Amino acid sequence: MQIGVIGAGTCDEATAGKAERVGRLFAGRGAVLVCGGLGGVMEAAARGARAEGGIAVGILPGSDPNAGNPHLSVRIATGFGHGRNLLIPQSCRGVIAIAGGYGTLSEIAFARKIGIPVVGIATWPLDGSFPVVDDPDEAVELLFRRLGR
Amino acid sequence: MQIGVIGAGTCDEATAGKAERVGRLFAGRGAVLVCGGLGGVMEAAARGARAEGGIAVGILPGSDPNAGNPHLSVRIATGFGHGRNLLIPQSCRGVIAIAGGYGTLSEIAFARKIGIPVVGIATWPLDGSFPVVDDPDEAVELLFRRLGR
Amino acid sequence: MQIGVIGAGTCDEATAGKAERVGRLFAGRGAVLVCGGLGGVMEAAARGARAEGGIAVGILPGSDPNAGNPHLSVRIATGFGHGRNLLIPQSCRGVIAIAGGYGTLSEIAFARKIGIPVVGIATWPLDGSFPVVDDPDEAVELLFRRLGR
Amino acid sequence: MQIGVIGAGTCDEATAGKAERVGRLFAGRGAVLVCGGLGGVMEAAARGARAEGGIAVGILPGSDPNAGNPHLSVRIATGFGHGRNLLIPQSCRGVIAIAGGYGTLSEIAFARKIGIPVVGIATWPLDGSFPVVDDPDEAVELLFRRLGR
Repeated sequence: MQIGVIGAGTCDEATAGKAERVGRLFAGRGAVLVCGGLGGVMEAAARGARAEGGIAVGILPGSDPNAGNPHLSVRIATGFGHGRNLLIPQSCRGVIAIAGGYGTLSEIAFARKIGIPVVGIATWPLDGSFPVVDDPDEAVELLFRRLGR
Repeated sequence: MQIGVIGAGTCDEATAGKAERVGRLFAGRGAVLVCGGLGGVMEAAARGARAEGGIAVGILPGSDPNAGNPHLSVRIATGFGHGRNLLIPQSCRGVIAIAGGYGTLSEIAFARKIGIPVVGIATWPLDGSFPVVDDPDEAVELLFRRLGR
Repeated sequence: MQIGVIGAGTCDEATAGKAERVGRLFAGRGAVLVCGGLGGVMEAAARGARAEGGIAVGILPGSDPNAGNPHLSVRIATGFGHGRNLLIPQSCRGVIAIAGGYGTLSEIAFARKIGIPVVGIATWPLDGSFPVVDDPDEAVELLFRRLGR
Repeated sequence: MQIGVIGAGTCDEATAGKAERVGRLFAGRGAVLVCGGLGGVMEAAARGARAEGGIAVGILPGSDPNAGNPHLSVRIATGFGHGRNLLIPQSCRGVIAIAGGYGTLSEIAFARKIGIPVVGIATWPLDGSFPVVDDPDEAVELLFRRLGR
């Protein structure tokens, strides 16, 4: 099962800690982590997934497959810029959105449009149609419950 | 100059009336209208632009160039599904967002990410970083002022 | 009706002359010209279409809508790099391929995959499944005959 | 290191046998296999890679992450149709093209355009700019030599 982590390419240490914890928990449950492949939240989540022996996939905005953070198992060089933001939720059963700016907002919008479960950690509250919590363990628990696992 | 109208594929008559008025005003100022090419807000805006002798471009989600509303001068069959939502703001100097759901939200997010001016008509208020008004004439006036015209 | 001209971004004068002639003939028959929006064959075809009062659409590889040759009526900033090569045949009823390298080859392959008529002018002969001629008037005549016009 | 196998979604048994052998050899050398994720050549290569304990990535044309052959470790749901043909060579250090039709031709064209090494097995000979052989072991050997491994 593939699950996504979406969030900005730069973040503070506390946010990175939460993203890494989410990545660890995903891998611990046997899920493949899908993310945007860059730094910040994406890098922390990938690092966590790999630390737990999991697979971390980066769907990169650029056309260079060698780009992306060093923790990725697989690098997809889309070359589609921000357009790759669709591919992350579209390739996943559900996503956890951690903090983030307008890029993350577009990913949440796509996830909601497609209709997959979203759980937020300190992110855009939007229309209240998905839960936003603080604790990564609670977020992962909520997501897996929504996925029927 | 290319300007976009973003909004949902179905809408009530009052919203369609506003979208059509925006399309007319764009064409009246010599701008090329860019939209998603489907029904609702997109169709009304295209109808307005054509009624005023303008060019209406539809950037379609599907791979069939014959799809799209009947008022389009140009039909781009992207086949990229929701991913085409990036191409509308990316091809424009600015956009007016009219009502809309999660698809429109993704387009607003991309417009803000790219950094082009956004004016809303009864749409997602988000973070207050762009004006949201009710009157189409006021919206177009605000957008052109932001574009330095 | 939208028809495409595909070919390289740089070309010699004789090739440009043929591309311009094709653009003129398309516009003269009321078709909208779709091309990749850059220089060489694309620019010459767009110049021809506009000289005859037609609409010339450029589907650009980059994310800057201000890029593209100066003869375009409409600029679509896809940001998809070589991936935009699919969008040209996909948005057209048929294409004329003029000379060209590997980019043009990918466009011919997509046109054949989609199943729209292709006519070549001094381009990749491939498998002999489409005519390759020298004269632009003959090429346009052949294409329109295949389109039932 | 990511390497691609490109080829048609249906093929005869002899071709499938060669594709499976290529997948096995890639995994045996520690490379991640990237393919289009569907049947035929893609499925056989993925089966081979997994049989050897490797990772097989499918970059799918559709928007359903559950689609794709059963041997994939990772499924990217691009939703970009034939446009995903760019993403395979673009994400790889080199590709082996096995038989194939116009879709494979577009992928070879992109690989040549990008400039990564291509080795063919009974595929489009094109301009003679890359070797086309019959034996999968020889093809893999040739590709790795070109990659400096």
